[in-house]
Amino acid sequence: MHTMTHSEELGLFTDVATMMADAARTVVRPWFRRDVAVDDKKDASPVTIADRSAERVMRAILAERLPDHGVFGEEFGHENPEAPWQWLLDPVDGTRAFVTGRPMFGTLIALCHHGVPVLGLLDQPVLNERWLGVKGQPTQFSSPLGGRPATRQNVALEAAEMSCTSPEMLELAPHTGWKTLKACAKRMTWGGDCYAYGLLALGQIDLIAECDMNPWDWAALVPVIEGAGGVITAWDGTPLRMDGDRTVLAAGSASLHQQAVATLQADR
Amino acid sequence: MHTMTHSEELGLFTDVATMMADAARTVVRPWFRRDVAVDDKKDASPVTIADRSAERVMRAILAERLPDHGVFGEEFGHENPEAPWQWLLDPVDGTRAFVTGRPMFGTLIALCHHGVPVLGLLDQPVLNERWLGVKGQPTQFSSPLGGRPATRQNVALEAAEMSCTSPEMLELAPHTGWKTLKACAKRMTWGGDCYAYGLLALGQIDLIAECDMNPWDWAALVPVIEGAGGVITAWDGTPLRMDGDRTVLAAGSASLHQQAVATLQADR
Repeated sequence: MHTMTHSEELGLFTDVATMMADAARTVVRPWFRRDVAVDDKKDASPVTIADRSAERVMRAILAERLPDHGVFGEEFGHENPEAPWQWLLDPVDGTRAFVTGRPMFGTLIALCHHGVPVLGLLDQPVLNERWLGVKGQPTQFSSPLGGRPATRQNVALEAAEMSCTSPEMLELAPHTGWKTLKACAKRMTWGGDCYAYGLLALGQIDLIAECDMNPWDWAALVPVIEGAGGVITAWDGTPLRMDGDRTVLAAGSASLHQQAVATLQADR
Repeated sequence: MHTMTHSEELGLFTDVATMMADAARTVVRPWFRRDVAVDDKKDASPVTIADRSAERVMRAILAERLPDHGVFGEEFGHENPEAPWQWLLDPVDGTRAFVTGRPMFGTLIALCHHGVPVLGLLDQPVLNERWLGVKGQPTQFSSPLGGRPATRQNVALEAAEMSCTSPEMLELAPHTGWKTLKACAKRMTWGGDCYAYGLLALGQIDLIAECDMNPWDWAALVPVIEGAGGVITAWDGTPLRMDGDRTVLAAGSASLHQQAVATLQADR
């Protein structure tokens, strides 16, 4: 019996992740900008239906193709929690964007091996944009809107385009270091959720500081950012962990990341 | 000699506006997500080049087709300021969105008659989405992403999806009534610029309160919002004026608008 090489294994997992994202697109799309007067019931808004349907189809594909793997998704809990390979699913990251008709939400699919993200897929189902990161490989990106998967290097903090989903999120931060960071950066743009990390991987944004993040919010972004030349950690510069402090700091280059960590921590 | 009827005149102006938006798309698009390492010089960033190029082509079309009309644009000043018909142009509204690669900026084209907006066009050049409003007519909308040009009616303030471009903008407000309004609304989503008004016209957003707005930022939005069933005024409920207080309040329905005006003013 043929035992798969590491590379064959990653190839198979990538195929499965791609299939999952394709299926999620199909079920999410019809609910985007759906006439809410018709569909918005208290118990099942369009975004909730899209979320659940997409998680269901992705779990169905995994159950068939990789039944020994673990799966963790927000809607339907944890299956095979002891397995070495774990998938983390967030079918609709960016609920507010989805609900308000902004095509800047995303489907996040991550595969972790003993807790380390080795594969990450970020998909924008309405715009047909997809980022794929595999540990140790260059990030791939396809989009009808243009863009190239390479972070911007050699940007100092004072020239950095910074981004964060919302000021309300930062109110939940463990400390106020982000205020200093924001004041030092060139400019802050609000909004984005996972999509902003995709833009960082394209060199359009240089710095993101967020908090209150769940593992399924960031796991897929790690291979995408790293494979595009960026760095992503907790605010204190340590690797992101499932049981970490829920902060995330992403930067386009190692030097900008270092500067950002120092600035965040200086203000504690 | 045939003198045009009012309706023929509006038809001609709509054709010219459409031609202007098509031309602006063509020149703006190549600069979106352009590799800034190559192009970003201090004196001419991609967004500045896109802005200027689009204003130039739009002015060229107006000069040829409607030479008696006035034109006002940010980049190249005011021509024929005494003419009864005045065009207001904002080739790239949403500089931050453009610069960070978010396809949520827009081209704004407005035609005012003796200071009153009678035609408004909002175009998203990258996504091929277009809103067209003509005074007294239903708003038209075309987009590959879906959506229907009708505001959401019967939404009370506590159920309203609110939106604003940024908290930094609101720091420039004439008073802090927006804080009460935000606290009363269901939810606030940040980011959007003109695109958020387009989403309000699609019933995706119910309420927008912004300030520090120039006439070319709001003039095109008036016919778009009104033709979709919404209301757009200054924060005090009075009609938007070229020499007004620079505040803008848009709501999906007259009753929500009334509630929002009362809430904004209560806190003065």
